[in-house]
Amino acid sequence: MRVVVTGAAGFLGRRLTARLLQTGTLDGRPITRLVAVDRVALPAMPTVRPHVDVLHGDLTDHLDILFAQPVDVLFHLAAAVSAECESDFDLGMRVNVDATRALVDAARTQSATGGPVPRLVFTSSLAVYGSTPALPLPPLISESTLPQPQSSYGAQKLICEQLISDCTRRGILDGRIVRLMTVAVRPGTPNAAASGFASSIIREPLTGLPATCPVRPDLRLALSSLRRTVQGILRIAEAERGTGPGRLNGPTPVNLPALTVSVADMLDTLRQVAGNAADLVTIAPDPAVEAIVTSWPCAFDNRRAAALGLRPDPDFLSVVRDFLADRNSVGQDEGPRGHDVPGPPLR
Amino acid sequence: MRVVVTGAAGFLGRRLTARLLQTGTLDGRPITRLVAVDRVALPAMPTVRPHVDVLHGDLTDHLDILFAQPVDVLFHLAAAVSAECESDFDLGMRVNVDATRALVDAARTQSATGGPVPRLVFTSSLAVYGSTPALPLPPLISESTLPQPQSSYGAQKLICEQLISDCTRRGILDGRIVRLMTVAVRPGTPNAAASGFASSIIREPLTGLPATCPVRPDLRLALSSLRRTVQGILRIAEAERGTGPGRLNGPTPVNLPALTVSVADMLDTLRQVAGNAADLVTIAPDPAVEAIVTSWPCAFDNRRAAALGLRPDPDFLSVVRDFLADRNSVGQDEGPRGHDVPGPPLR
Repeated sequence: MRVVVTGAAGFLGRRLTARLLQTGTLDGRPITRLVAVDRVALPAMPTVRPHVDVLHGDLTDHLDILFAQPVDVLFHLAAAVSAECESDFDLGMRVNVDATRALVDAARTQSATGGPVPRLVFTSSLAVYGSTPALPLPPLISESTLPQPQSSYGAQKLICEQLISDCTRRGILDGRIVRLMTVAVRPGTPNAAASGFASSIIREPLTGLPATCPVRPDLRLALSSLRRTVQGILRIAEAERGTGPGRLNGPTPVNLPALTVSVADMLDTLRQVAGNAADLVTIAPDPAVEAIVTSWPCAFDNRRAAALGLRPDPDFLSVVRDFLADRNSVGQDEGPRGHDVPGPPLR
Repeated sequence: MRVVVTGAAGFLGRRLTARLLQTGTLDGRPITRLVAVDRVALPAMPTVRPHVDVLHGDLTDHLDILFAQPVDVLFHLAAAVSAECESDFDLGMRVNVDATRALVDAARTQSATGGPVPRLVFTSSLAVYGSTPALPLPPLISESTLPQPQSSYGAQKLICEQLISDCTRRGILDGRIVRLMTVAVRPGTPNAAASGFASSIIREPLTGLPATCPVRPDLRLALSSLRRTVQGILRIAEAERGTGPGRLNGPTPVNLPALTVSVADMLDTLRQVAGNAADLVTIAPDPAVEAIVTSWPCAFDNRRAAALGLRPDPDFLSVVRDFLADRNSVGQDEGPRGHDVPGPPLR
């Protein structure tokens, strides 16, 4: 099985790649070749089982190489993040929409020319949902809630969802759409995601660094730890299609399960774990960040994810403990070298 | 005011253009120039008030000319229709998605370079909705119902909706999205729209020609006459934004009001109007057409349209009578020559 991961140098891509290298299988089949692609340079990877190819540069420049051999499963994680899409509309359209379109076109060319129908696992986002005065969000969000994005990032993710769903309906692609919650605590350094603070207000103080919280502490967030997010992506990638229990039914996107916590709860947990480190956080609301983040839903009906065997993190304390355990065992900058800490069983 | 109509040679474009030429105003302002563009050649138009420019060819080849002078209002009707998008995915993506994207880019360049923010009136479709076993449609569809297109045409319309909504939210475009019902009885000749039969089973027998009905007679359809459809497009184009009564609230698309009738009811009405002419219709279900048409919703909650002053046709008999009245006064091939029959007041 030949597996491609785009955005492989990101915090999700690194963990997913490490996990794939560690297990060496996907959907019960051995991964014979893994292709990791990112605009950011990736560290060299072991050439032991499975063989790894690292491609550095724009995804769209590498399509020929990616599809030179048949692609069985493609994890498309590469994206411009929310705040950069909001400040640069064209960048977001190019990176999030045009690159995905090019990938979808290459994938369906593969199936149209007699190759296998590629499984395309696309990471979408809770940012497809948004509240407006004319149509406020219901108290609990489910997959039947109308997406009404209030950020260009969310709109671009939704456009890609529609394209992938339609190609899946046509049978020219096997699309799997995973709507991610806000992932926290993310390892590494801050990026331009509007949700980045949900990680930095915990991660930075835990290493003795100051952090700024750009939202009011009563803001509630729908969170998922990195561990459970990667588990969710893999579960949906591997799920059998069908109508039975545990099967993936239709091309409808799946919302990953969410733990709902307030920023104040998160800071209380930080104090519980690390005492005065919580004083390193300065609350300084930023209207640009708040405009994006407060439009996102904070509470989800997790039943569809539960039917696929996915559970939210039990509480924020366990999220912080997972983060610390992972950091201590692999270093804060854990790369795709196969040193990932095994999480709970995937299925 | 400079107004552009794309798809101006289509059955909707001809009627809308005729109506604009007849009134000579839009939103209370005089139309000084009307630009009609279509791939299909348009008849010469009168150069009296307002001045009319006719452009023949692909929309994307004419963007420079369209935007050489500021565009105040742009009616974007040009589209590949449902059955052709289903049989040729790339054609649909090119005509429905890429051309709309190019138009949106040109429109936002106008506002970004100091010109007026163009009002872009986009005709979407009830085909954005679709029923699946995993998530069947509710009995009544409203604007808060989740679109789940089951045709590439519907998916492409939904993608454009998202792009236009996001640009409207950003203030770089004033997007108005009108979701059309199945328009019947359409003048002219059949096209490749899966819904075309809803017109041909009435129009053809009324002129003594045979017609084939590719769906079972118990199929129910959400219809709107051509008159009311054009009224709806103009009403939404002219509506003031805001939260008061009769205002357009948010960028949310508006579903035009629908009359729900079964094909059997339509044929009964035909018999009532034209007696044995109804015998010219042969029922011959076509799985490809049925797959598209039966996925569309047939009953709508018309309250949002009603708040904008729009009402569905009262019954199918009045739809047929309107069709006959229009045909008899302007000929079956009525063009944008300003001879349109006045309908009820627009507001």
